Amino acid sequence: MSQPQQRRFMLPESDLPTHFYNISADLPEPLPPPLHPATKEPIGPEALAPLFPMELIKQEVSQERFIEIPEEVREAYRIYRPSPLIRALGLERALDTPARIYYKYEGVSPAGSHKPNTAIAQAFYNKAEGINRLVTETGAGQWGSALAFAGSLFDLETKVFMVRISYEQKPYRRSFIQTFGATVVPSPSTETNAGRTILESDPDSTGSLGIAISEAVEVAATHDDTKYCLGSVLNHVLLHQTVIGQEAIKQMAMAGDQPDVVIGCAGGGSNFSGIAFPFLREKLAGNSRTRFLAVEPASCPSLTQGEYRYDFGDTIGSTPLLKMHTLGNGFRPAPIHAGGLRYHGMAPMVSHLYELGFIEARAYAQNTCFEAAIQFARTEGIIPAPEASHAIRAAIDEALEAREAAQERVILFNLSGHGYFDMAAYDAYLAGQLVDVAYEPQREAVAV
Amino acid sequence: MSQPQQRRFMLPESDLPTHFYNISADLPEPLPPPLHPATKEPIGPEALAPLFPMELIKQEVSQERFIEIPEEVREAYRIYRPSPLIRALGLERALDTPARIYYKYEGVSPAGSHKPNTAIAQAFYNKAEGINRLVTETGAGQWGSALAFAGSLFDLETKVFMVRISYEQKPYRRSFIQTFGATVVPSPSTETNAGRTILESDPDSTGSLGIAISEAVEVAATHDDTKYCLGSVLNHVLLHQTVIGQEAIKQMAMAGDQPDVVIGCAGGGSNFSGIAFPFLREKLAGNSRTRFLAVEPASCPSLTQGEYRYDFGDTIGSTPLLKMHTLGNGFRPAPIHAGGLRYHGMAPMVSHLYELGFIEARAYAQNTCFEAAIQFARTEGIIPAPEASHAIRAAIDEALEAREAAQERVILFNLSGHGYFDMAAYDAYLAGQLVDVAYEPQREAVAV
Repeated sequence: MSQPQQRRFMLPESDLPTHFYNISADLPEPLPPPLHPATKEPIGPEALAPLFPMELIKQEVSQERFIEIPEEVREAYRIYRPSPLIRALGLERALDTPARIYYKYEGVSPAGSHKPNTAIAQAFYNKAEGINRLVTETGAGQWGSALAFAGSLFDLETKVFMVRISYEQKPYRRSFIQTFGATVVPSPSTETNAGRTILESDPDSTGSLGIAISEAVEVAATHDDTKYCLGSVLNHVLLHQTVIGQEAIKQMAMAGDQPDVVIGCAGGGSNFSGIAFPFLREKLAGNSRTRFLAVEPASCPSLTQGEYRYDFGDTIGSTPLLKMHTLGNGFRPAPIHAGGLRYHGMAPMVSHLYELGFIEARAYAQNTCFEAAIQFARTEGIIPAPEASHAIRAAIDEALEAREAAQERVILFNLSGHGYFDMAAYDAYLAGQLVDVAYEPQREAVAV
Repeated sequence: MSQPQQRRFMLPESDLPTHFYNISADLPEPLPPPLHPATKEPIGPEALAPLFPMELIKQEVSQERFIEIPEEVREAYRIYRPSPLIRALGLERALDTPARIYYKYEGVSPAGSHKPNTAIAQAFYNKAEGINRLVTETGAGQWGSALAFAGSLFDLETKVFMVRISYEQKPYRRSFIQTFGATVVPSPSTETNAGRTILESDPDSTGSLGIAISEAVEVAATHDDTKYCLGSVLNHVLLHQTVIGQEAIKQMAMAGDQPDVVIGCAGGGSNFSGIAFPFLREKLAGNSRTRFLAVEPASCPSLTQGEYRYDFGDTIGSTPLLKMHTLGNGFRPAPIHAGGLRYHGMAPMVSHLYELGFIEARAYAQNTCFEAAIQFARTEGIIPAPEASHAIRAAIDEALEAREAAQERVILFNLSGHGYFDMAAYDAYLAGQLVDVAYEPQREAVAV
């Protein structure tokens, strides 16, 4: 009898990455810097000091290729890392494709997504600088869960502004966050000036990541003992996520394969970056023909339809200006179930690499993503998060293309999280009640 | 710097067990046989043939020590097995105990519990004998999820009678089962004579595993193309679960430790058996002083307060009589959140080993279990299923005892599932709304 094909490629704990990989060191052109909204001059570290601990501000602008991961952070990573790389044998068979499909599964983490990779690091650096209290926002709830968990590990008080639509659609994500001891506030709220301003102009606002960011930033900026944590977009967040791709490189080598295409869903850009950047290093050096594909929702298509320009990271306009693909900071994304992809902008680093032609982007409507998700669940045994279903849709389409072309294609995607808190969305899909929302530009600014 | 302590002990796929371990072969006294309710004579295979495929009936009475696992079953196991063995370093630190605590984590499976270990095997044997349709019951929803997944793998139609209290408390477990293509019916239902009989005497019945079993058995018995699947209690179910303990033996050896005590929660008895039986083999041979501890809910304490006698496996009295610890087949368990532990009886094999003095039992009320669960979540990063929280409570108490006694104790427990579909229960606990229900004997039979 022939040896069965290996499904799961597991690394020993000793193969946990020792450093974060900083793609800034390998860029052919430097990243445009963040600007002060009033002066339009590049901001210095002091402008970020009210929000972030100094170590993270340094990482934000660092040009070092590798930044050592503190042992306390690695110890916490060992709760769930290295995460598995899985060959999708069941899905391949169902698609009858010559393609080989692999996925890196980040749903094994305490929060059920890739988010703890940066939450743990951020909590550690804050704790190390004497901070007692963290504040953040959350869309789908995955980031809030991650920071609540990280806060509980490092004994930090944590407050989470949760986008109201998710707060209502996902009450169990709220419970999850509370189980780890954090406080949850639906956003927009009346606790901040930002929230009150939004509610005045739109009392029924379902919220957005941009609004929730405004609220969290305001709380941090007005409390000395409190710092702000962001779950995506910024360089240091993307940096922490590179543990994903570094592990995947070793695991693909175990499998004896090289990816022809690396796929990730992209809202703010962190899980895509996490899997892509370590592989992109070879491409930036001119040594690789691997393609990189960021997948976004058709209703919130910042890369494929947004402008590349300076814009605010939040809705109210309280952050520095970031050069990125944006639908405009006043854009209110439709209430699709992939709450983690409802963001008007895209990480400056991802936007920059897209402009330089190193990565591709594609947008899908939600029904076709749920269809892919269910095919994946029934063949691979994991119900994916609606966000991750975008990556699955693209992976399946790549595999079907390979079948048409009778081509051996090696596909690697990041399964950034499970969907066990998203069953209401699956209910709606199975009942035929999910609406595909087209993108509608909304260029007017919010009255502030 | 010293090497960090290893947390997770992972086996390669090549170490997946090749055989189920059948404890029947090693019993000092044979298990009392099931009896026909009318004749009170031991039943033969033909009596079970309407309900189960022949291969499972053979396994039910087999005396072979090892039964080979079909390659198709092992291939499906590789979707999630071997499962991790984890050293609870975070929990140990929080408890400040000299004990070393390990847990085998079965929540990594598609259904989030140990249940697919037998669901996959049962679906395979049914498929192999030409069956098209499976019917079963589910309490907390974990077994129904497992069989729905297994049915989807082997292309079988699956129908699940779900205990009404769980159907209402856990709508997302229902969605989960439906996502895998199975049909879900709240029990008691009007679809069966059994269900209608219960509803006549108790129109507001919240249901129980015993009632749901009656309904599922009736559907199988009255349809030629349909067989019944049970998620616990029977010998062949316990047999399939022994992959857990076989892996754990190898993993404990990797860790360089031997358990002083092996702990599992016990409803029907299958996850406890799964981890315990392979370790018990040595004890039955007189070569081990390891203790074995089955943990049950105080409100449904079949081992610690039930009688050891012949009783029906279901509420309506349609199954063969099984010699087991029972609270009486008319006992209606209180609606605690650990739905998977709400069963009036206990597996005959577990009952037998308890009577022979090879295992101990202990009962806990639910609030103290949730307290343990939250301590575990905040230190280990996994929110446990309410069922599994009983094992955690016992493990923590063993570790605290070890601290009092300044004793190095090695504790191994089965973390049989995650609690991501049980957040309503955590909500209730955190709000101080959970009631500890004492056991109230109810000896009168149900009017049939």
